[in-house]
Amino acid sequence: MKREFGRREFVGTMAGVGALAALPVRSWAAEKKTGPALRIDAQRLQRSLEDLSVYGRPAGGTFADGVSRVAYSESDVAGRKFVMGLMQSAGLTPRIDAAGNILGRRDGRDSALKPILFGSHIDSVPGGGNFDGELGSLAAIEIARTLNDHRFVTRHPLEITIWSNEEGGTIGSDGALGEVTPELLERQFNGVRLTDGLRAIGGDATRLETARRARGSIHCYLELHIEQGAILEKAGIPIGVVDGIVSIDEYEVEIRGVANHAGTTPMPERHNALLAAAKLIEAVQEEVTRTPGRQVGNVGQLAVFPNAPNVVPGLVKHSIELRDLSEENLVRLGAAIRARAEVIARATGTQITIKQVEHLPPALATPEIQGQIETAARVLGLRSMHLPSGAGHDAQVISRLGPMGMIFIPSVGGISHSPKEFSQWADCANGANVLLHAILQIDET
Amino acid sequence: MKREFGRREFVGTMAGVGALAALPVRSWAAEKKTGPALRIDAQRLQRSLEDLSVYGRPAGGTFADGVSRVAYSESDVAGRKFVMGLMQSAGLTPRIDAAGNILGRRDGRDSALKPILFGSHIDSVPGGGNFDGELGSLAAIEIARTLNDHRFVTRHPLEITIWSNEEGGTIGSDGALGEVTPELLERQFNGVRLTDGLRAIGGDATRLETARRARGSIHCYLELHIEQGAILEKAGIPIGVVDGIVSIDEYEVEIRGVANHAGTTPMPERHNALLAAAKLIEAVQEEVTRTPGRQVGNVGQLAVFPNAPNVVPGLVKHSIELRDLSEENLVRLGAAIRARAEVIARATGTQITIKQVEHLPPALATPEIQGQIETAARVLGLRSMHLPSGAGHDAQVISRLGPMGMIFIPSVGGISHSPKEFSQWADCANGANVLLHAILQIDET
Repeated sequence: MKREFGRREFVGTMAGVGALAALPVRSWAAEKKTGPALRIDAQRLQRSLEDLSVYGRPAGGTFADGVSRVAYSESDVAGRKFVMGLMQSAGLTPRIDAAGNILGRRDGRDSALKPILFGSHIDSVPGGGNFDGELGSLAAIEIARTLNDHRFVTRHPLEITIWSNEEGGTIGSDGALGEVTPELLERQFNGVRLTDGLRAIGGDATRLETARRARGSIHCYLELHIEQGAILEKAGIPIGVVDGIVSIDEYEVEIRGVANHAGTTPMPERHNALLAAAKLIEAVQEEVTRTPGRQVGNVGQLAVFPNAPNVVPGLVKHSIELRDLSEENLVRLGAAIRARAEVIARATGTQITIKQVEHLPPALATPEIQGQIETAARVLGLRSMHLPSGAGHDAQVISRLGPMGMIFIPSVGGISHSPKEFSQWADCANGANVLLHAILQIDET
Repeated sequence: MKREFGRREFVGTMAGVGALAALPVRSWAAEKKTGPALRIDAQRLQRSLEDLSVYGRPAGGTFADGVSRVAYSESDVAGRKFVMGLMQSAGLTPRIDAAGNILGRRDGRDSALKPILFGSHIDSVPGGGNFDGELGSLAAIEIARTLNDHRFVTRHPLEITIWSNEEGGTIGSDGALGEVTPELLERQFNGVRLTDGLRAIGGDATRLETARRARGSIHCYLELHIEQGAILEKAGIPIGVVDGIVSIDEYEVEIRGVANHAGTTPMPERHNALLAAAKLIEAVQEEVTRTPGRQVGNVGQLAVFPNAPNVVPGLVKHSIELRDLSEENLVRLGAAIRARAEVIARATGTQITIKQVEHLPPALATPEIQGQIETAARVLGLRSMHLPSGAGHDAQVISRLGPMGMIFIPSVGGISHSPKEFSQWADCANGANVLLHAILQIDET
């Protein structure tokens, strides 16, 4: 693989993001023998993932039983303590900001430069797996250890970030943007009020302003993550270059029919809200799959009233969630679904109201950073492909502070948010190496 | 209307149910001037319905706000006390059997004859109306008062029956059949254990055997009830002659897909249990309405797991309820729905299991009794039509003790089990008069 890595190729790629500056002493390019040869310690990365997995593991379980390391829980606190210990041993001096994020800085040669941020999160959903967040977090620490092993000092300061409470809605990274509101502080997360949760993990709701970072204050942000889908696995490609994190439109649908006796009301007289919902669920599926593309749509939450076997449903409420990189595509889809709903309402004698309750804009990965990730994969001899992230990540928030890029590795069976979540150890190591080399390349720009 | 009532016509109709016996003294036929002229007091019937409506009425409400007179509640106890007072004033001496049924006997001229039973129930669903059960109960008492007013004594003993806890599943009439099991006694009804509920209304769970009636021990059972559907109203016909109470097949459906991330799972890779359920709900509708007839089908209860907007539904459970007078038709429908489910499971990559959890046989009204009701309507100048009862009634249970017939009157808008449940007072009076005259005719046979 090293043989594939020629200076010409590298310069050719770098040309896309700016001419090479005068190469400073001890930089990766100056120490050609060291830089391209750097590899993370795959065994050590695996061991740290296995070691972290005990915090939140079901009683009597093994690694394969996954974790419940829900933000602000005892296992979250214990897992964070373990991670801070790792950071300490990596020469990072971890600190916790007011939003509960764990930050560890590794100085660069030029303290005037903005830091390169990279990391992820270690909190999980209830009944989650050992890779979603953990991989990007522990790979970041592993990269610091690898650089230490080779006494490699980058130009830019490096900052390893373990964002708090990603699964609850990127709360930690929202804190870095200064967007944790007083209302949010009162909200319950898994039974814990955010204010209390922050205190439990060493944050401080009264000093949130201190966690805020200025826009443009970072050189860039990078995050390695499992794909959580099966696109890479199906394609047999080990590295995903994320185009961006999709835009999300969420709707609440209310279908009003007439609740009536299911024995005495003749079929033609019914105003069956669930029959209308069934037709609308099919319409969402049809509209989303009508054209090729990576757009997705889901009706995942639904409630029937009064919800009795012998009563014709009088009211149904359900969600519709649409995701795509293109906001325009989502607008078009939303309009098509509304048009279908009108026809269904007439056909079923119901009233259908569709209210948009959420619009998350897409977070496009910075093209230059995508190029660096591609190059890093290529120099490591790893095939890569572009794909969107259908899931939300801290990266989508941090992209508002500066350039952003994400690296995906395959998820076995596309399974995530489940104890069955798994990624091959070789893929984990590949992802960490791509992250390392993307950082080294970017450091030179 | 009296002019339409000719002896010839009456005899012609009676011929269908047996030749006229020698007419005893003081019978309806013997006292032609009195019998056909007998009418219930419509004002008094309305007043008693209005008086009963205060027991269980929402605080500060009016008659139009309906009642919550749930079995075994304080309002049920109070309403029963009011009804027993009415019975007392009608010369009936009400007693409560061990199953909580209120029974009031009016002696006939021939104590060797089996009694003619008629009545209904006064318990309601939570948030119910003032007619479902109340009409048949208070019309029965009104008939006793009318007979008293005219000093009319029937041949057969009359027995007015107010069945307990109809809405909870015909518990009182089940008691009359000796079918309240020890398990049932432990079950909660609106938060009250049946054993305790029976005690609250003057029944006795330890002496249920005494409430049991022998099969063949009644001359017949008649029940006047609101239709709870809109068939009569739509047809503009004031009297319904019930063919029978439909058979009910109930199924529990379990659809297993794969819960997955709604952002990261491409559409073709999903195993969406709710999409499969939507297709099956439509299939139930299509199969039930494929052929003409009065069969009905309902998917009224449905639960989605894990029920989150951003998770592809992995599991859906829902009910299917099918009703028709013909059991064969229900079997055929069930098979057609199972066949559709197989196709849907293949198309959606899900597993669908359909388990039958209930089969209630139909309770066909005795043809001779249907004829008597038809005749009574005709002699009163009221148009009538045959229709099935899609709802369950005490009559379906009591039909196993002897001949059974039911009279329906129109429900405004077909609305029932709602405070909006209403029947025109004139229709209530018509129904009570048809019940009176059906009893008088049957008394002569």
